[in-house]
Amino acid sequence: MTEADAERRLLALGLVPADVRVLVEHFAEADRRGKSSHGLVRVEWLERQAFDPRASPRLLAAGPCHERWDGAGALGYLTLAAVCRGVLDDPPAHVRLVVAERCFPTGSLGLWVRRLAEAGLLALLTATSPRRLAHPDGGPPLTGTNPLAIAIPSAGGDPIVVDVSMGAVTHGDVLAGRARPDELVPFGGPHAHKAFALAVGLELLVAALAGLEHGAVLLVVRPEHDPVPALREFAAGVRLPGDA
Amino acid sequence: MTEADAERRLLALGLVPADVRVLVEHFAEADRRGKSSHGLVRVEWLERQAFDPRASPRLLAAGPCHERWDGAGALGYLTLAAVCRGVLDDPPAHVRLVVAERCFPTGSLGLWVRRLAEAGLLALLTATSPRRLAHPDGGPPLTGTNPLAIAIPSAGGDPIVVDVSMGAVTHGDVLAGRARPDELVPFGGPHAHKAFALAVGLELLVAALAGLEHGAVLLVVRPEHDPVPALREFAAGVRLPGDA
Repeated sequence: MTEADAERRLLALGLVPADVRVLVEHFAEADRRGKSSHGLVRVEWLERQAFDPRASPRLLAAGPCHERWDGAGALGYLTLAAVCRGVLDDPPAHVRLVVAERCFPTGSLGLWVRRLAEAGLLALLTATSPRRLAHPDGGPPLTGTNPLAIAIPSAGGDPIVVDVSMGAVTHGDVLAGRARPDELVPFGGPHAHKAFALAVGLELLVAALAGLEHGAVLLVVRPEHDPVPALREFAAGVRLPGDA
Repeated sequence: MTEADAERRLLALGLVPADVRVLVEHFAEADRRGKSSHGLVRVEWLERQAFDPRASPRLLAAGPCHERWDGAGALGYLTLAAVCRGVLDDPPAHVRLVVAERCFPTGSLGLWVRRLAEAGLLALLTATSPRRLAHPDGGPPLTGTNPLAIAIPSAGGDPIVVDVSMGAVTHGDVLAGRARPDELVPFGGPHAHKAFALAVGLELLVAALAGLEHGAVLLVVRPEHDPVPALREFAAGVRLPGDA
């Protein structure tokens, strides 16, 4: 699918042009960065989802170091795009915690924090999704794959961008037939209890702040130091997270 | 080693009684919760470390939602104990980010966040330590084992406490001969790049905020919801992180 196709099809769903641009930009960037399960293939998936194409996220409350947003029925991508725009327009003096209620689907979390890091801000983002991971010993699925993304800016070059889901495979892989449903377990093999524990912690962190529906939590901090060049030098060519 | 033995030996190192109490309490609680590599065995280890027993952590700066501490040569345990005491005495209205420079060793991170969660606060804590994890494909050790601890309070009962190190084994296991040095790699087997990426993200998060020496970063948030009872019910007896 081309970007032009995607644009046409998303407009046909009733989305306004500005929102379509946000979505196509996210999907195209995901494809460029090899995150194809969050790429333009998502247009077809969106065509099968029920959502209000005219809904807009709302800023519910804002303080000097916290914000609360409500997705209000809008696609989570649009909520995170609005949140990031707000941070870039008015960056925190030190730190800001942004809680987004009813924020789903959120796409490739690494892309959102990368944008903030490219503007010099350190960012940490997590988001919940349908329960698909069970305890490694069995039982019902208890958590989403709950990715954690961390981006660290660097004055002299590309930020480091970490984006780790707690699943051994993605739900997208299962949908695309690249993985079996029983492979969607916490990653780690004999240490899968570690990834499961992280998934539980992030699930409850989001739920304790954003409520029962899927949400997202973003921490933005103004960094005091630039440790990236030294790590790159020390790594001597080893590929670091987020590098092409 | 008994707690009384530990107390006597720590006093003999020149630590003041109030600091000795902090240390013995931490070690004894670590033993009780099965984190024995952070338990009373650490007294012998401390006897072999060079540190100033009279150093005290200092609060360098405090704002409505951020604090900066300097371990100032004191053991990291004492810095985190002072940080937690400060939070408990004056909890944040919404959110507080605490950065602790020169904060090492920090012990079992889960115990610090548990204490905050038992007072009704949501807490996330990470800390850096000597570089021991290399990229799964090889190269020099680039990061510490860099645990991430997350505690979620619950009005009706025990908090959920996640405490995950990114190593397949602990350095303590290696010291104690329970693991070979070559087993101290990012956990995850074929997915070890995920644990490595998280270790890199946490390493740089701490370094970007606390500087080049080992440090710790604590996020404390007042929760809006109590998702723990519903998860416990849903889990139907499956052991959740931090449970006995």
